[in-house]
Amino acid sequence: MAHANKMSEHYKKCIAACEDCARICNTCSDDMIGMEHHGDHQLMARCIRLCRECAEICSLSGAWMSRLSPLADSLCRLCAEICDKCADTCEQHAPHHPLCGPCAEECRRCAHECRDMVEVGSR
Amino acid sequence: MAHANKMSEHYKKCIAACEDCARICNTCSDDMIGMEHHGDHQLMARCIRLCRECAEICSLSGAWMSRLSPLADSLCRLCAEICDKCADTCEQHAPHHPLCGPCAEECRRCAHECRDMVEVGSR
Amino acid sequence: MAHANKMSEHYKKCIAACEDCARICNTCSDDMIGMEHHGDHQLMARCIRLCRECAEICSLSGAWMSRLSPLADSLCRLCAEICDKCADTCEQHAPHHPLCGPCAEECRRCAHECRDMVEVGSR
Amino acid sequence: MAHANKMSEHYKKCIAACEDCARICNTCSDDMIGMEHHGDHQLMARCIRLCRECAEICSLSGAWMSRLSPLADSLCRLCAEICDKCADTCEQHAPHHPLCGPCAEECRRCAHECRDMVEVGSR
Repeated sequence: MAHANKMSEHYKKCIAACEDCARICNTCSDDMIGMEHHGDHQLMARCIRLCRECAEICSLSGAWMSRLSPLADSLCRLCAEICDKCADTCEQHAPHHPLCGPCAEECRRCAHECRDMVEVGSR
Repeated sequence: MAHANKMSEHYKKCIAACEDCARICNTCSDDMIGMEHHGDHQLMARCIRLCRECAEICSLSGAWMSRLSPLADSLCRLCAEICDKCADTCEQHAPHHPLCGPCAEECRRCAHECRDMVEVGSR
Repeated sequence: MAHANKMSEHYKKCIAACEDCARICNTCSDDMIGMEHHGDHQLMARCIRLCRECAEICSLSGAWMSRLSPLADSLCRLCAEICDKCADTCEQHAPHHPLCGPCAEECRRCAHECRDMVEVGSR
Repeated sequence: MAHANKMSEHYKKCIAACEDCARICNTCSDDMIGMEHHGDHQLMARCIRLCRECAEICSLSGAWMSRLSPLADSLCRLCAEICDKCADTCEQHAPHHPLCGPCAEECRRCAHECRDMVEVGSR
């Protein structure tokens, strides 16, 4: 594959991290929608929303990187910020929802990969 | 992870196939946009468009499955149809674009996984 | 605008209906996430999810029609089905949430426009 | 509609501008894919890609605003930047493609509305 060769291992790793993060955020957000809340309702609502938005920005970041878009850098910078916000909230909510712990970990990993990618570039 | 346990291996495999297919379709479509076309311009235009649409429907299918959506079945049925159409066109265009061959293979695999998932269900 | 002239009034109306439906479904779904539920929690959860999925399929349908995609027909057929399902649930939930009534109306209108579009075609 | 009342006219105008911009960018990008290029192939390729990315970020910005997401501000800031880049390229390409002129205008308008929205806020 001529084209894929243009992508560094680093770049591919960032795409994979975005896909992984989008997947678990989708699962995590949806699972909470079905939950009878115990405790802080507003915390859970914030968590549902952040996971949903985080899933979308991660998914778009992965798509733009897959297209080697010159705009991927600015999107990934924003993606890293949102991943960190989502991780903060998931960590707070983790005692009430078993998926929030692993979800926060993926968000931190994705934020890290996005920042690395922006520094190093695609090739 | 409580929730992820609800997903069968079969289901997870289908999500992964959709993500893989979306990624290569994004790369393939974008790469052709930059190409000076040799030969049949309309074939390449059709290929660019199908790969783009295929990437989008695969990505949405993956997201809906990640949320265990009861609507994932009908979306994956459509996804399988579109993957096959995309594969048909990529196979035709493969002699003119090195990425179209591997892209067609992923499309066929994704179509297959989607059809299997619809038959077997999520759990 | 050469291109936009290719679109019939009917087609443009369907794009607008999809955009309107996506917008209100996004607003409606999100608003319920923040609500303390009164009454049937599972009904509200189903409604939040359906509105979210409906917003996504309407948005994608609008995008594919804007590109005059030959695949827009099959997507709009599915979109009409999902809009009707979403309307059914929103109608049920309307007594508990003021946005669900108007949201159900937009879903019905969008389902209708999508079916009309599929019958008549894009031009 | 209780919820929609929470949105200022300004906010609604920004959502509409994002939807309008996404629509014309989708149409514009797709139309160029089918064109036999005359003149600068790399300019047209850049234009196809920017319109596609611009359509996606506008569509996501509209969705996040429809959900009154607290993250809409940072997304709209990025959206404004991308709209301006897209407008720059469409203006350059306008002599070769009749849709690029009106598309550039919508991009400028959307960039303007996004910046205004960020300053004024949602309510």
